[in-house]
Amino acid sequence: MSVKINRLSNGMRIVTENMPGMKSASIGVWVNVGGRHELESQNGIAHFLEHMAFKGTKRRSALQIAEAIEDVGGYINAYTSREMTAYYARVLENDVELALDVIGDIILNPIFDPNEIEVERGVILQEIGQSLDTPDDIVFDWLQEVSYPDQPLGRTILGPADKVSKFSRDDLSGFVKENYTPDQMVLSAAGSVDHNAIVAQAEVLFGDRKPGNRPAFVPGTFSNGERLENKDLEQAHFTLAFEGPNYKSPDIYTAQIFSTAFGGGMSSRLFQEVREKRGLCYTIFSSAGAYSDTGTLTLYAGTSGDQVAGLAEITMDELKRAADDMSDEEVARARAQMKAGLLMGLESPASRAERLARMVAIWDRVPDLDEVIARVDDVSTAMVRDFAGGLVQSQAMAMAVYGPLGSSLSVGDLQARLAA
Amino acid sequence: MSVKINRLSNGMRIVTENMPGMKSASIGVWVNVGGRHELESQNGIAHFLEHMAFKGTKRRSALQIAEAIEDVGGYINAYTSREMTAYYARVLENDVELALDVIGDIILNPIFDPNEIEVERGVILQEIGQSLDTPDDIVFDWLQEVSYPDQPLGRTILGPADKVSKFSRDDLSGFVKENYTPDQMVLSAAGSVDHNAIVAQAEVLFGDRKPGNRPAFVPGTFSNGERLENKDLEQAHFTLAFEGPNYKSPDIYTAQIFSTAFGGGMSSRLFQEVREKRGLCYTIFSSAGAYSDTGTLTLYAGTSGDQVAGLAEITMDELKRAADDMSDEEVARARAQMKAGLLMGLESPASRAERLARMVAIWDRVPDLDEVIARVDDVSTAMVRDFAGGLVQSQAMAMAVYGPLGSSLSVGDLQARLAA
Repeated sequence: MSVKINRLSNGMRIVTENMPGMKSASIGVWVNVGGRHELESQNGIAHFLEHMAFKGTKRRSALQIAEAIEDVGGYINAYTSREMTAYYARVLENDVELALDVIGDIILNPIFDPNEIEVERGVILQEIGQSLDTPDDIVFDWLQEVSYPDQPLGRTILGPADKVSKFSRDDLSGFVKENYTPDQMVLSAAGSVDHNAIVAQAEVLFGDRKPGNRPAFVPGTFSNGERLENKDLEQAHFTLAFEGPNYKSPDIYTAQIFSTAFGGGMSSRLFQEVREKRGLCYTIFSSAGAYSDTGTLTLYAGTSGDQVAGLAEITMDELKRAADDMSDEEVARARAQMKAGLLMGLESPASRAERLARMVAIWDRVPDLDEVIARVDDVSTAMVRDFAGGLVQSQAMAMAVYGPLGSSLSVGDLQARLAA
Repeated sequence: MSVKINRLSNGMRIVTENMPGMKSASIGVWVNVGGRHELESQNGIAHFLEHMAFKGTKRRSALQIAEAIEDVGGYINAYTSREMTAYYARVLENDVELALDVIGDIILNPIFDPNEIEVERGVILQEIGQSLDTPDDIVFDWLQEVSYPDQPLGRTILGPADKVSKFSRDDLSGFVKENYTPDQMVLSAAGSVDHNAIVAQAEVLFGDRKPGNRPAFVPGTFSNGERLENKDLEQAHFTLAFEGPNYKSPDIYTAQIFSTAFGGGMSSRLFQEVREKRGLCYTIFSSAGAYSDTGTLTLYAGTSGDQVAGLAEITMDELKRAADDMSDEEVARARAQMKAGLLMGLESPASRAERLARMVAIWDRVPDLDEVIARVDDVSTAMVRDFAGGLVQSQAMAMAVYGPLGSSLSVGDLQARLAA
């Protein structure tokens, strides 16, 4: 393995992996801050900050930031999740130094020009509008909200329009000061990269920053709940969440194998039962998402209003059946899908840099491929059945549905069906 | 270059490129058939066929198709466009032979079981519903419709629900017989692949098929037109199309460079004027799409109903300004973006296989990188200004808008603004 890790004296971690034969690289900084580090009054500010990073620094205007990267044909972007904010660029190999210079600049030196704050507020309000116009996007926000009610983890990333309308320059600066400290950052790069050069440059850019002392965030507590919004759409967008393991849990691979076999591909049970046998939907999938202290197994399907209650019942029946008779062949297939997906992901600089950053953020090291594969191989059919059985037994679930609602549908009904 | 091309005696072309260091491959068959090869009564059948390919063959049930690929951790998918239907898989290197066997099977041997046709009809009707629930998806269908009215090229890929509800087994078989002939197919593979082995296997799978004799499709004729649908959404989803070059035109690189500089990235004029300076939208972009006989330069922006007419006017003003003063720096930056994008794309087996297939389908050969870069470098600032000037002068444009419409907006108004 050519993974190299360093830690600056202020706690910032740097991880790189050189990929022979590559002529490009992906490089970025992953900051351990996201929606769940916000107070309720701050909801949306982590994402607002991510936008403002691109709106001008002490050294570059917004236009100069864009031009610096695009002059060399590169690409720069960012995202905010519940626990992480990432700023990353994809460039050709000779431009890695430039990319890191720009990324360091926008993270460390944003000036929060009051005029630019007002302009960007308009952009984010449009982004909120776009999300509201995308039913299979907004319904997942609602699912999160009912899974973790009245908790930071349950709030949206974008925040509500009324809060986004009010954030001030001081709000932004205060949030940066508390959260954008080097001990919360991982610099990650993969592709055609030189570890020592990146470490030296990081020392210059980030080395004089002091570590922070941020309070721990509020732990997430999964809750049963539901939100059904009747709306005149073509489809009822149906989502369900079960509580799953956090990403450090020994069960995490079992949850992922279960999710793959249950609803992760064309041969999965949900795809076969709901789409292939009955033709009830075009899109149906499950996925296992994890946070540092909790996790959720989520399902999505888009179907007609008069079919959604029936579809929900089928998912319950399939869950019970999986607990009873998930086969060795299905579990072996899910293992093969996970392992091949991992191998193929490693062939792309962008997904490799993302994985390195996440591993270092979580584990402070990067488990090598053999170690991960061994853990995937350790997941037995009995473990997968037991995992499904645990979901059946606990009956803990949250549901969000958006669209035409043909017949009655409730978490209580679904729990009763599980118990039957 | 390690690109290798063969042609079977029945006209099927095979193109592969081995990528040293890769442990996986992407392989697929690109068939020269799509929405524009349909009669009006057949609208949606090319896409219906793509779905039926996965629903059982002489050798495999639908479940066995999915299991064959997913047992080895691979991934199989397909898409239908206006001119092309592609079936492709991503697998680890030892499973390339298996993947080609499955792809050949689903393309050549679908059985069109009547029960499966009925089930899949339901799936496709759900897919149509999903598209209708996605405003920034459906508005592009409308834009295509008003750009090429009453022509095969203007119709949707999915087809209207009433036609999809009626296709019969004979309709499907007839369409296959006419269009799925080996002279219309390109087999393409990239990654860890062995050209000779793939050619030998293709000969066995496809070698006994006879070439076809399909009539030429109806040429596309771009037309001014508009479709505005008032709807209570958060955003007005605004799209515009100008006529552009076809993909064999000498102007194609000029159109792409213009599109990149005009609305292709963060430093582009539209992004800067509309989003960065005025905060009117979150998403705005232009892109240059091309067919074999025509092309379109399209714009998209999502904004508020009361801002959409103003936003449309700004795009007209920016187009005029681009014709006057697009700078050497902007054109150089767009060239750099295109070249770097090309280089980075080549690092992924999937995008490389796609490019190989398209190049062979269009040119019967794969231009090497230096040749493409030379053509990009040949595009001068004067050529880009002239291209923009041609759009201003012709005033030919089509528009589709979906959402709240605050004030009056018409192609006529925009043409008048261009002429002013």
